Amino acid sequence: MSNVFGEILRVATFGESHGPAIGAVLDGVPPGLHLDLRFVQRELDRRRPGTSDLVSARRERDRVRVLSGVFEGVTTGAPICLVIGSRDARPVDYEPLRDRFRPGHGDWTWWAKYGVRDWRGGGRLSGRETAARVAAGAIAKLLLGPLGVDVAAQVIEIAGIAAVRRDAAVAARSPLCCGDLRAAARMATAIRRAKAAGDSVGGIVEVVATGVPPGWGDPVFGKLDARLGGALLSIGAVKAVEFGDGFALARMRGSEANDPLTPRGPASNHAGGILGGISDGAPIVARVAIKPTSTIDIEQDTIDVGGRPARIRARGRHDPCIAPRIVPVAEAMVALVLADAALRQEALRAFSPPVP
Amino acid sequence: MSNVFGEILRVATFGESHGPAIGAVLDGVPPGLHLDLRFVQRELDRRRPGTSDLVSARRERDRVRVLSGVFEGVTTGAPICLVIGSRDARPVDYEPLRDRFRPGHGDWTWWAKYGVRDWRGGGRLSGRETAARVAAGAIAKLLLGPLGVDVAAQVIEIAGIAAVRRDAAVAARSPLCCGDLRAAARMATAIRRAKAAGDSVGGIVEVVATGVPPGWGDPVFGKLDARLGGALLSIGAVKAVEFGDGFALARMRGSEANDPLTPRGPASNHAGGILGGISDGAPIVARVAIKPTSTIDIEQDTIDVGGRPARIRARGRHDPCIAPRIVPVAEAMVALVLADAALRQEALRAFSPPVP
Amino acid sequence: MSNVFGEILRVATFGESHGPAIGAVLDGVPPGLHLDLRFVQRELDRRRPGTSDLVSARRERDRVRVLSGVFEGVTTGAPICLVIGSRDARPVDYEPLRDRFRPGHGDWTWWAKYGVRDWRGGGRLSGRETAARVAAGAIAKLLLGPLGVDVAAQVIEIAGIAAVRRDAAVAARSPLCCGDLRAAARMATAIRRAKAAGDSVGGIVEVVATGVPPGWGDPVFGKLDARLGGALLSIGAVKAVEFGDGFALARMRGSEANDPLTPRGPASNHAGGILGGISDGAPIVARVAIKPTSTIDIEQDTIDVGGRPARIRARGRHDPCIAPRIVPVAEAMVALVLADAALRQEALRAFSPPVP
Amino acid sequence: MSNVFGEILRVATFGESHGPAIGAVLDGVPPGLHLDLRFVQRELDRRRPGTSDLVSARRERDRVRVLSGVFEGVTTGAPICLVIGSRDARPVDYEPLRDRFRPGHGDWTWWAKYGVRDWRGGGRLSGRETAARVAAGAIAKLLLGPLGVDVAAQVIEIAGIAAVRRDAAVAARSPLCCGDLRAAARMATAIRRAKAAGDSVGGIVEVVATGVPPGWGDPVFGKLDARLGGALLSIGAVKAVEFGDGFALARMRGSEANDPLTPRGPASNHAGGILGGISDGAPIVARVAIKPTSTIDIEQDTIDVGGRPARIRARGRHDPCIAPRIVPVAEAMVALVLADAALRQEALRAFSPPVP
Repeated sequence: MSNVFGEILRVATFGESHGPAIGAVLDGVPPGLHLDLRFVQRELDRRRPGTSDLVSARRERDRVRVLSGVFEGVTTGAPICLVIGSRDARPVDYEPLRDRFRPGHGDWTWWAKYGVRDWRGGGRLSGRETAARVAAGAIAKLLLGPLGVDVAAQVIEIAGIAAVRRDAAVAARSPLCCGDLRAAARMATAIRRAKAAGDSVGGIVEVVATGVPPGWGDPVFGKLDARLGGALLSIGAVKAVEFGDGFALARMRGSEANDPLTPRGPASNHAGGILGGISDGAPIVARVAIKPTSTIDIEQDTIDVGGRPARIRARGRHDPCIAPRIVPVAEAMVALVLADAALRQEALRAFSPPVP
Repeated sequence: MSNVFGEILRVATFGESHGPAIGAVLDGVPPGLHLDLRFVQRELDRRRPGTSDLVSARRERDRVRVLSGVFEGVTTGAPICLVIGSRDARPVDYEPLRDRFRPGHGDWTWWAKYGVRDWRGGGRLSGRETAARVAAGAIAKLLLGPLGVDVAAQVIEIAGIAAVRRDAAVAARSPLCCGDLRAAARMATAIRRAKAAGDSVGGIVEVVATGVPPGWGDPVFGKLDARLGGALLSIGAVKAVEFGDGFALARMRGSEANDPLTPRGPASNHAGGILGGISDGAPIVARVAIKPTSTIDIEQDTIDVGGRPARIRARGRHDPCIAPRIVPVAEAMVALVLADAALRQEALRAFSPPVP
Repeated sequence: MSNVFGEILRVATFGESHGPAIGAVLDGVPPGLHLDLRFVQRELDRRRPGTSDLVSARRERDRVRVLSGVFEGVTTGAPICLVIGSRDARPVDYEPLRDRFRPGHGDWTWWAKYGVRDWRGGGRLSGRETAARVAAGAIAKLLLGPLGVDVAAQVIEIAGIAAVRRDAAVAARSPLCCGDLRAAARMATAIRRAKAAGDSVGGIVEVVATGVPPGWGDPVFGKLDARLGGALLSIGAVKAVEFGDGFALARMRGSEANDPLTPRGPASNHAGGILGGISDGAPIVARVAIKPTSTIDIEQDTIDVGGRPARIRARGRHDPCIAPRIVPVAEAMVALVLADAALRQEALRAFSPPVP
Repeated sequence: MSNVFGEILRVATFGESHGPAIGAVLDGVPPGLHLDLRFVQRELDRRRPGTSDLVSARRERDRVRVLSGVFEGVTTGAPICLVIGSRDARPVDYEPLRDRFRPGHGDWTWWAKYGVRDWRGGGRLSGRETAARVAAGAIAKLLLGPLGVDVAAQVIEIAGIAAVRRDAAVAARSPLCCGDLRAAARMATAIRRAKAAGDSVGGIVEVVATGVPPGWGDPVFGKLDARLGGALLSIGAVKAVEFGDGFALARMRGSEANDPLTPRGPASNHAGGILGGISDGAPIVARVAIKPTSTIDIEQDTIDVGGRPARIRARGRHDPCIAPRIVPVAEAMVALVLADAALRQEALRAFSPPVP
């Protein structure tokens, strides 16, 4: 159940960092959708490593291949299997990690849970797993597009340096996926400095979904923010999520926090586009905190597979800051949740009285 | 799907604010558990309204009744239905809300979604719904107890006033569920002041689960923090959640954020007890931001059911600050997620090689 | 998971034979449906015991009460809790069964599974559990009605006596739910004869759903016949199910078995209205085999709770033939599966190209 | 949801008849299992076409490849992706079926449902889809083996010719998977005769699972027979299923049908190893009816994609009788259901009082 996501649009992912391939099977994609494979590939290219000195040096072409569910370029209603082969697997880099666990990483908890592990590059816990999410999320975006829904994320803080501007066009061209050129320059410096010290830094990513009509999401356990929050927290390294004004709402009064309603929708957006777990027509705004990469080139205390004290220092090809590479992944998870919510809502609508 | 929660331990809840009853059906509770009904009742009493001038004046005895699944005081493996009757329903209080929507409340989004609504006290969107969660969570706590797992929450901030101490014994006796007497006194003043102004305030609740062994939770989509986060965000008024150092991790370096591993477990707890989505043996620590109650006694802009501009001012019996009453609800949701994770882990263990 | 059924329309049932109440929670019922409670009650009356000498003498009024999800007679989108109180519980009748297991009954397997049991009247394994299914199924029928779908079952065989005619109007008035008056008379004689001998007989029930449009159901694991078959086999005492010509198809040639297609739909109906797991527009026809009631007034070999050999003879108020009382239950399960399929199909349709 | 199966052990399958590959992703396989790939391959070889003149002439090597979830030959707890490439795809054979639907086949209902179809060899509705089930089922068998559970099926009837003997060793070597050599010879003749006439025949397959301990399966909706029945009915061409004496039970008296209980388990097995939906320790016995292959070389009435009357005659490489090839598929589905039930039961057991 751990590797299957969604209710009506259901995604199963698979694959380890240094296995032959990773991929996803999407069940529940409506038929008749033109599957624009170039778009899927472009989305994958956005999270690919090896593109600048600010991210991991691992080089993967991340070519996606469709094994099923598409006929003459169009989805048929059958499950879609997407596979991405791995090329630049260098498990030898990880030999030193074979019998010791990286602090701050899932290495040890996986071992505690399963008693067996693929130690090569984190195995299933590797960030490489997210390529399958991005491929699946691209299909969700293709579903959402005709509904007028757009999902876009950007880095808004790295190493404590906050972006002031949030220019989407700037973010799209920025290696740090940041919409503020000036802040991005300072962030780059901070990342390089941390990298030089063998260390890493964290950041904050903001995702905004526009065009979601009122009425998506469900009350009680299926609240849209609950589902989005769970989806975003399922991304490795994400340790916090907030909607709208988030933690700042805890310090407001009701009279400040409430978004007045107008015939054209909410007049402000403290709530981040969701009230009572249901979209209110305003943009959906979520922010996630990303911890600094746990794999660092600094010696730390740890234990080995025998439970004995040990020291560890990792020299692999790691991202000194994972935040920019989480941007497309966060978009993918939000798109998957929204597409699922859209399909659920359509199921209701067919039987319901017209909303006034 | 919206009102069913969990995978192996599955809870379905039902009931509206001013309907005849609310309740929960728990499926998957293992047999042979002594169902201590007094404990369940005590948990319900903790979230009951009408207990001080700081919370809603609605008076409900919230007596829980067991309709099934228990025989001679012991669970049988059959589903357990818990029902809590409503007595002090005063729908007349809500007449003014019949055709207008409260800003900041789910009133309007429910209407936009369903086109039909029970306008009495928020219907299904009322905080009263959480009584069913607390009753179900009490049973989860009874399951977790013998495993040595304890779940306890407290208010750590209200109206911007932060608790310095976190004394559980103090919190247990505090009407504000706050473990810092001095801070609690200031919080009470802030609440009364907001109430006098017809306004409301928000706060922060921290939940800590101790005794969770390493190995609970699942990788990828079923991460323990993803499930806990989704569960906590499904509570009305919760708009943000963070684990361990949460948003502060975004500003740390890896060398600070990583918890060194020792033969006795993690030496620090920046991660909040979860790594790679799997518990690491340290206490699980989550914090949630609670927005100020949206129903306030101040006139606000809104729309009516015809979509026309209107003004609204709510005079019902509302909590000027909902944070203290969320304390047992947050505990309940965490207990439900953990009990489910425990059952999942046991299913794996029976087939697995012994962990060294 | 055992007591929750369905995907989009999800039903959780609860209750034991001699507990205070049984009931169901339905999640996913679309809003705006007029909930005709008299219809639900009439459906329950159809399966009520104590109505003739051919069924159990237990007398239950089986009054259904709605605890949630309905406002001013209309569904709101919130979960609907239906509760049916028990009155004529006479657990004392079952005292002799307290420490011995009835052969052919789930008494022993429940004990083997759970190690705890409510021995009063079979507890959760009692046929009384099906009242909750019938109540839930009635709501599914209310959903299907406006779509032109009708679900009707009748007894077509008891004690080896087969009905020749299948007159629905006759069946509706027959205490044996049989559409062939002449056969019904012979069935009644066979039942009385078995009863006089302390024994019981089995039978066959046929369910027909008319008006299902082509396109309901899903390929592969979610085939409509797989879902219907699983649903029907979940009814106690049902040990076999067949669709269309069923087992007889195994003896046909393809040229006989294939239903020719015409512009107005299939020209015959060997397939029972389902091809490739998807409805083909012809009536859906399913038959279930019902074993003779296991509780009989004849001494049999068994074991006691200590695993020691014992003898048992049950004198409670049992149905000498359960087939007629399964008629409304089979309809309910088929209606629940079809309503769920209808909702799933609508979710797809909203995104799909128009079918030529 | 249509292509995902199981609860704790969850399988997602994908792939079309003439696409590049078919496969399965298994989530929830416990770690530490030696994945004997040669065994998986042998199971696949059992359902492979092209092995005799009695089955389809299509030649596929059906080589299975593991893309994930296994490290150094052992499962890690990560999802296992199995892929089987297709070689002998000859879509050109199906050109005549491009715009006309085969009677008795899902061709038309898929079209009615989705409005888009992969017409090459039935696309997703092809029997080739079952290779993924067999591969997944092989892993379920590897899980069940150490628990002492064995699942074996054989053909017991073809074209109305019933096997008298059920010798498993004979069945294993028989091209018709039949345990009665003499009957098998007559069946072969009947198949060849039908084939010569361009026609097809049906049959009956019996699956027996031995070694299942008492206590697997769940009451109410999750009955073991409900789950097994649903799983078996999800196999294309299966139109009926019965457990134990099945339809014959409808003609027995309770005193005949009840299996007396002894300290060593049930003394007979009319119930087919399941009582009240829970295994009773006796062998689980299920039989499925398989309709004659719908694709025949005889002209039939049908419609074209424009809904106009047409004639069709199929000349592809079809099985004149699909029953023998369903043998490993039926075993796979039973093994998947049982492995899932085993995992569910273990989850309960860890928390339950010891069963006496």
